[in-house]
Amino acid sequence: MSTGVWLVGARGNVATTAMIGARAIAHGATSTDGMVTERPPLTNLDLPTVESLVFGGHDIQAGSVVDTAERLHEHNGVPGRDALDAVREDLAAIDDRIVTGTARNCGRTVADLADDAAFDDETLSLRDLTDRIRDDYAAFRESEDLDRIVVVNVASSEPMPTDPGQYDSIEAIEAALDADDPDDPLPASALYAYAALSEGHPFVNFTPNAANALGGIRDLAERESVPHMGRDGKTGETLLKSALAPMFAGRNLRVVSWEGHNILGNRDGEVLEDEDNEAGKLQSKGGVLDGILDYDTHNRVRIDYTPALGDWKTAWDDIRFQGFLDTQMKVQFTWEGSDSALAAPLVLDLVRLLAHADAQDEGGLQPHLASFFKDPLGVDEHDLSRQFDRLYEYADRHAAEKGGAGDGS
Amino acid sequence: MSTGVWLVGARGNVATTAMIGARAIAHGATSTDGMVTERPPLTNLDLPTVESLVFGGHDIQAGSVVDTAERLHEHNGVPGRDALDAVREDLAAIDDRIVTGTARNCGRTVADLADDAAFDDETLSLRDLTDRIRDDYAAFRESEDLDRIVVVNVASSEPMPTDPGQYDSIEAIEAALDADDPDDPLPASALYAYAALSEGHPFVNFTPNAANALGGIRDLAERESVPHMGRDGKTGETLLKSALAPMFAGRNLRVVSWEGHNILGNRDGEVLEDEDNEAGKLQSKGGVLDGILDYDTHNRVRIDYTPALGDWKTAWDDIRFQGFLDTQMKVQFTWEGSDSALAAPLVLDLVRLLAHADAQDEGGLQPHLASFFKDPLGVDEHDLSRQFDRLYEYADRHAAEKGGAGDGS
Amino acid sequence: MSTGVWLVGARGNVATTAMIGARAIAHGATSTDGMVTERPPLTNLDLPTVESLVFGGHDIQAGSVVDTAERLHEHNGVPGRDALDAVREDLAAIDDRIVTGTARNCGRTVADLADDAAFDDETLSLRDLTDRIRDDYAAFRESEDLDRIVVVNVASSEPMPTDPGQYDSIEAIEAALDADDPDDPLPASALYAYAALSEGHPFVNFTPNAANALGGIRDLAERESVPHMGRDGKTGETLLKSALAPMFAGRNLRVVSWEGHNILGNRDGEVLEDEDNEAGKLQSKGGVLDGILDYDTHNRVRIDYTPALGDWKTAWDDIRFQGFLDTQMKVQFTWEGSDSALAAPLVLDLVRLLAHADAQDEGGLQPHLASFFKDPLGVDEHDLSRQFDRLYEYADRHAAEKGGAGDGS
Amino acid sequence: MSTGVWLVGARGNVATTAMIGARAIAHGATSTDGMVTERPPLTNLDLPTVESLVFGGHDIQAGSVVDTAERLHEHNGVPGRDALDAVREDLAAIDDRIVTGTARNCGRTVADLADDAAFDDETLSLRDLTDRIRDDYAAFRESEDLDRIVVVNVASSEPMPTDPGQYDSIEAIEAALDADDPDDPLPASALYAYAALSEGHPFVNFTPNAANALGGIRDLAERESVPHMGRDGKTGETLLKSALAPMFAGRNLRVVSWEGHNILGNRDGEVLEDEDNEAGKLQSKGGVLDGILDYDTHNRVRIDYTPALGDWKTAWDDIRFQGFLDTQMKVQFTWEGSDSALAAPLVLDLVRLLAHADAQDEGGLQPHLASFFKDPLGVDEHDLSRQFDRLYEYADRHAAEKGGAGDGS
Repeated sequence: MSTGVWLVGARGNVATTAMIGARAIAHGATSTDGMVTERPPLTNLDLPTVESLVFGGHDIQAGSVVDTAERLHEHNGVPGRDALDAVREDLAAIDDRIVTGTARNCGRTVADLADDAAFDDETLSLRDLTDRIRDDYAAFRESEDLDRIVVVNVASSEPMPTDPGQYDSIEAIEAALDADDPDDPLPASALYAYAALSEGHPFVNFTPNAANALGGIRDLAERESVPHMGRDGKTGETLLKSALAPMFAGRNLRVVSWEGHNILGNRDGEVLEDEDNEAGKLQSKGGVLDGILDYDTHNRVRIDYTPALGDWKTAWDDIRFQGFLDTQMKVQFTWEGSDSALAAPLVLDLVRLLAHADAQDEGGLQPHLASFFKDPLGVDEHDLSRQFDRLYEYADRHAAEKGGAGDGS
Repeated sequence: MSTGVWLVGARGNVATTAMIGARAIAHGATSTDGMVTERPPLTNLDLPTVESLVFGGHDIQAGSVVDTAERLHEHNGVPGRDALDAVREDLAAIDDRIVTGTARNCGRTVADLADDAAFDDETLSLRDLTDRIRDDYAAFRESEDLDRIVVVNVASSEPMPTDPGQYDSIEAIEAALDADDPDDPLPASALYAYAALSEGHPFVNFTPNAANALGGIRDLAERESVPHMGRDGKTGETLLKSALAPMFAGRNLRVVSWEGHNILGNRDGEVLEDEDNEAGKLQSKGGVLDGILDYDTHNRVRIDYTPALGDWKTAWDDIRFQGFLDTQMKVQFTWEGSDSALAAPLVLDLVRLLAHADAQDEGGLQPHLASFFKDPLGVDEHDLSRQFDRLYEYADRHAAEKGGAGDGS
Repeated sequence: MSTGVWLVGARGNVATTAMIGARAIAHGATSTDGMVTERPPLTNLDLPTVESLVFGGHDIQAGSVVDTAERLHEHNGVPGRDALDAVREDLAAIDDRIVTGTARNCGRTVADLADDAAFDDETLSLRDLTDRIRDDYAAFRESEDLDRIVVVNVASSEPMPTDPGQYDSIEAIEAALDADDPDDPLPASALYAYAALSEGHPFVNFTPNAANALGGIRDLAERESVPHMGRDGKTGETLLKSALAPMFAGRNLRVVSWEGHNILGNRDGEVLEDEDNEAGKLQSKGGVLDGILDYDTHNRVRIDYTPALGDWKTAWDDIRFQGFLDTQMKVQFTWEGSDSALAAPLVLDLVRLLAHADAQDEGGLQPHLASFFKDPLGVDEHDLSRQFDRLYEYADRHAAEKGGAGDGS
Repeated sequence: MSTGVWLVGARGNVATTAMIGARAIAHGATSTDGMVTERPPLTNLDLPTVESLVFGGHDIQAGSVVDTAERLHEHNGVPGRDALDAVREDLAAIDDRIVTGTARNCGRTVADLADDAAFDDETLSLRDLTDRIRDDYAAFRESEDLDRIVVVNVASSEPMPTDPGQYDSIEAIEAALDADDPDDPLPASALYAYAALSEGHPFVNFTPNAANALGGIRDLAERESVPHMGRDGKTGETLLKSALAPMFAGRNLRVVSWEGHNILGNRDGEVLEDEDNEAGKLQSKGGVLDGILDYDTHNRVRIDYTPALGDWKTAWDDIRFQGFLDTQMKVQFTWEGSDSALAAPLVLDLVRLLAHADAQDEGGLQPHLASFFKDPLGVDEHDLSRQFDRLYEYADRHAAEKGGAGDGS
């Protein structure tokens, strides 16, 4: 069973790092550290192997995956030289399978970063554009002779639609595709999602973009019984929040202020300098605390662009809480991680797990994958350990079904 | 149903803060923040009220609980003036119910801090000493006309016995009490535990001391069917560890080094300057990581005495982990809490929950209380969220039994 | 020689804390820690004693200094109970000498915080308003029979004038007072400064406000030969910057990014939420780094309002620098201080030192006081140690003149 | 004028990094960031160029400088690949000029790390050993046809002599060389220093070792009029201390506790695990604070070995201070630097500056170089800015003498 991975934003840092890692693992040039599907009990599932994944995708930037990889190595040290050397040829081959995507309705800042070719589609209607994307998916599947493809959106943050509620039905989505209203348009992420789900391709929204968070797109996936999940990969500060906040809740320690200051130097940071694009991100980050604490609290998240950091992100969080005898205490943490090295393995995990769900005919949202997302669609549980437990239960159940392989067997 | 709380180390910071808090709550002078039993689903259990708890205890220091309370207010700001004013008279009344404890086998450093009166028992055999402690418990219960007393050890850290394995049976404990060997003696904590459990009093070991961690003492509790639990209250750095480490494990992020540096200025810090007394503490702190990660890692815990900090403890932890493409990343946190304000509410929680277990005839270890301890006796699970879940299941089960009251009702 | 201290913003946190401290020192209820003039070589100067200072001032808030003091004690623990009890009566007496100030041209946010009485002056022309302020100064001096008064601006941050350069001469200031143009008005701080300097009262601008930073006001002080200095007291993050940045410069370690994130919960934080008011503050904070490093670098300062912190300010700074072999390294620090406890002693220091300058007929700017300010008027040196050295040289010179008393004698 | 650099510990991290950097600069493969002598006003001095320096040295390890360089690149990323590639051949050539040193009296831990060849000298008397070292110096100078050599000790930390005071005269040193007492021997560092200074070679002690800190060795340098300086390069936590502590002193903020916790993973960390070797290091680190504050304070420095960090050192410092109204406040910082990248440029700076002093016939200690050392011999000033000022005065004076070149000319 061969599985294709179609990456929207394929020349971006996350996609490139995912491809480097997958191929470096295939060549034995790195460990599988960081991949959730490479430790028990997930290893008990029948998943496509990392080595067998075939990559392709859309992008609106010129250049090549190899360029991105070289730049990541140069500026961030990730990947290291050995991993890069091991996969350079593979990356060049993948780059031949990357086609021009669309910058339609991604906001001015994203458009500024796009290659001229990305605007060739300006004369197309939304409907035609969606058809073109659908054809791109089909061509990839056919030319690579794949049993299945999983589409993953790892593109830049878009501005949120002004009224997402208007897209709460399949009909509304279809109407918007036909109306093609330039003043309140469907964003690109929704086009990619629509094209994938209407054709039966599992879809992952790793960004804070609207995409499959829109009610009409979710209904479409339900109707077509295609597995999909999102949104916004939980990789850093929010991951820590979802691990720490349950401690305060469980101990009845009242959080009176949670300040988060993120600085990062990659394109993600640059795009988020634009307040329109930042809004969605802040929204998905903010929800975690509300989901764990049963009261409102002062909860601010700052994201600032600091070029010197490259692809490394530093988060500083200052948490004040009130305990016994109304005593005010605090925790402060700094988190320093390579944004792409944190996100990339989750992309591979999600592809493998969605391929599994698809093979099992488990369509619609995948709540057992909540731990991967800042804003897990259809799931209220934000406690990381409980989210993990749901994933492990899924793995154990399927392992048992397939013949009783226990943990680690 | 009236419940007595017998505190071993009753004039210490933790005991004093627990009594201040309980009485301040009774007088409406503070919130119940920090108490696990004051939030759902624990509020569904039939627990003795905080207001009704009656306090007494042993101590080896001169002075009074009021002195300790004044000193805590002065140097640490906890309790605040209003809470202190509200409870001063209550504390003075409690102090009349505090009798001289024993410094037998607590190590040189603890002995140096003890009042002369604590050495009046030097002529007593271990057996006689244990009988005297038993009489103290009985006198408290009788004079205060209590239905039940719960004994809680919140005394200073003792040196560990050189070979705890030698006390692995009730017989060995009895023999040691009779032999009274000055060269390898039972420590004071074991005497308090033995006296409590042999008389049917529930027992909590909030310290890293041997006490009910000895096999023979555990067997005694089992035989007598008395509920007990320990050891070493999980209040600060280790609490955070048990919340954070599952995140690394679940994401397959390999922890390559976890350095912890604790500085504190109270008597606890002073006693732990003595390496003999520190050993047990470090052991109970170290186990958490091993219990969550399935591999060995560099894991050092430092505890240093910094007088300027008073009862406030600062922990600095530096955690390095390896992720995708073998990328090294890190988290650093500082935790700043009032040691006593963190520990005291848990003491009240444990008293209430052990009284409940006793009323339900649930003898022996109480694994649903694992979340309260650094080294939960009889429990391998160190993931804080899962420990909480076990506690909530207990609450839900008992709430359902008593007539179906759901969460929050 | 009796010295009066006239505080503009007399019921604010900084002014109140300065008065509490001065009176607590007078009553022997606290140490002189934090006062630069209370350590050698400053102790060699003939300064008015702290005990002898007489306080009065303007404010636009209702309430009293005692209210502010109680609130500071309650929410921040500074002052402590003992100091507060020692000075409560003194504060009440001082409050009788506080008169209503003006909110003219302080920006909407400050105006919203003002008492109704502060708008009684709305019918007055700028010229009349300035005269009224001058009369207030004179009445204080007369009624308290003072040899000299020093006026200190510790009011909230105002919006900067749109074109400060237009006030670069005495004539321009006079014309603006007469023109009374509502569209581009002189801010309140300039009125207080003008009134003080034209009457010969030494003036300190402890805020980032325009005041004596305007060229015309500086010329006025020069012409009248009145000592004055400013602006913006250097109390926290910027103080640290001016101590640390010379280390990077001296070692040829290239600062590639200096991110600062300040969170604070007092009125200062609330006022700075308004971007108009924040602009001046950020400007005076930003200049320090430029003044020490001889190249441009990424240098951002964030100030956020976090109510839970009260008067305590936390700064988190993240500094990246490049060293040998182009190696990127970093320093991160957190600074946690009571804003008022840091600022207040400097107010007293400056009053004493300006009184000294006035007694010595040293009019105009006081460059030896540069260490006290974020943006020291007329001084390019931002290296804190060198600024201190200039202060010590002043002290040594004057001590030598007065009869050769050496350091510490 | 050709200058040779003789490094004791030539295959260690610091020496190797210094040589890589010097040669990379020569090849235009890196910047001169981190070198004090490469910025004004030091650039006004007539110093030997970095490019012209010729390297040789002693070591007790087997292997080669190229091995060390490869390992540093692999584990720490410093040097980067480009710099390493540019200098690999140069390093191999230098390695031919490295001869076997002595492990005499360096302590057990250092001896354990030494190559067998380092013990061939066991049969030699101290006097003979010193002569052999002297011959090594001479051979280097001759074979490379050098005008001058500067000897720099960058070897591992030795245990301190039990009574350094016994070596307070030249006679005592000579007697010790003759007596060769195995129970209380002169350490290796003293032999290297004696051999250098008695032959007229300028000497730098970049370690905390005894060497030229012994009175007799200092007298020798004085008598022979040879420039020398030490000890213990000020590169990280202590550098920050000497920049920050003057801030507290100058502001009369009373430091009540300064806790420092250093973790590092290189050989330096490994050697300092041995308490004997650690003692000298802690002593030189501790003195800085005492030298700046005029009172005693709680001041602890911890150094722990954390293998995962490689050559990167992380220091965490927690500083509590008391200010106005006896308010307790704090600063905490983390410093993360490459130990070798911080030390290496200073080695080159010191070589150039000692060569300059030698050319100017300025023998004895060099107090203008105090800023380079944790424990600057013969200097009480620990304020970093003032130490820099002394260096700049030296540069300005010499620049003026040589013909009035001003800053930057």
